[in-house]
Amino acid sequence: MYRLYDFLPSGNGYKVRLLLTQLGMPFELTLLDIMKGETRTPEFLAKNANGRIPLLELESGVYLSESNAILMYLSEGTDFLPTDRLAKARVLQWLFFEQYSHEPNIATSRFWLTHGMGMEKQQALADKQAPGYAALQVMEDRLADHPFLVEDRYTIADIALYAYTHVAEEGNFSLENYPQIRAWLGRVREQANHVLITQAEF
Amino acid sequence: MYRLYDFLPSGNGYKVRLLLTQLGMPFELTLLDIMKGETRTPEFLAKNANGRIPLLELESGVYLSESNAILMYLSEGTDFLPTDRLAKARVLQWLFFEQYSHEPNIATSRFWLTHGMGMEKQQALADKQAPGYAALQVMEDRLADHPFLVEDRYTIADIALYAYTHVAEEGNFSLENYPQIRAWLGRVREQANHVLITQAEF
Repeated sequence: MYRLYDFLPSGNGYKVRLLLTQLGMPFELTLLDIMKGETRTPEFLAKNANGRIPLLELESGVYLSESNAILMYLSEGTDFLPTDRLAKARVLQWLFFEQYSHEPNIATSRFWLTHGMGMEKQQALADKQAPGYAALQVMEDRLADHPFLVEDRYTIADIALYAYTHVAEEGNFSLENYPQIRAWLGRVREQANHVLITQAEF
Repeated sequence: MYRLYDFLPSGNGYKVRLLLTQLGMPFELTLLDIMKGETRTPEFLAKNANGRIPLLELESGVYLSESNAILMYLSEGTDFLPTDRLAKARVLQWLFFEQYSHEPNIATSRFWLTHGMGMEKQQALADKQAPGYAALQVMEDRLADHPFLVEDRYTIADIALYAYTHVAEEGNFSLENYPQIRAWLGRVREQANHVLITQAEF
């Protein structure tokens, strides 16, 4: 059975929890508190030198890090990843977009605000507004004439982008002017075996 | 023939130029000056809504963005990408690590310093030192007992990490204390058909 090292408020971890659940793959959850340094202990660094969750332990005892690499690994050969070469590249395009243009703005703002660092990070929060909204606009434009991000069906690209977009307001990003994104969030929520970010039992 | 929209000083663009050359694939280069806003024109935004280079135009006229997604697309079925499922996931792990933990610190510092923004960005540059060196340490640890990042052979993981690591000093990151990285840079440079980041003719 897989073991997932995770921190429940993490959207990066949530991506993996959601996919594993929708694939019907059982897994054990080892929760670590990143606020208490539990991902920077010598024991955990021996598992992941980069000191981050989520970290997936395979049945062979091998560890795999980086949420979107884990999504790719788990979805290969399933309905959650297209087999067509270009469509697969489009999925990857959205996954790299997520980690480079979306997560560092929207997720980092949410992290600071939900962990009581709003005052200390005021300037940095302000600096993240424009690039965060620019990332949301890229999604809005795509979703204006497509129900999902790739191939008009639900894939790991949707899982990866849903993770932090559906809690964007916790990072002080309003979705009021993004009706296409709001409709898409609803379509993602309607997928079979959807789970919530806070869900701890699987 | 492929067409690559690019900006020569860009390490992200360099990854694609290097791989295309090492694959022996001819391509035409359309150079855009990001400092003059040439990637934010309506014409370019119609090609890539995210307004960034590199952008690869396929022979079919389809556009593919995100440097590491382009590397994955071009390398599939070649010696530059393993076929084993876990090894491929390890390549992806390094590619996402590169875009999340390495590039935003080392490449962004280099961009500011080489484009005359050193004074204006002093605090941000200082803030990027610790996470940038932490990313280099993750590489150093891996390379201490492996000649390359994945499967002990040269893959797109090496291309992706080489792009900004070999010019880290331009971003004020010294490689003096990273002997394993320096030896690996030499091994990457020795690969057949290596090109330089500044090379404009292919």
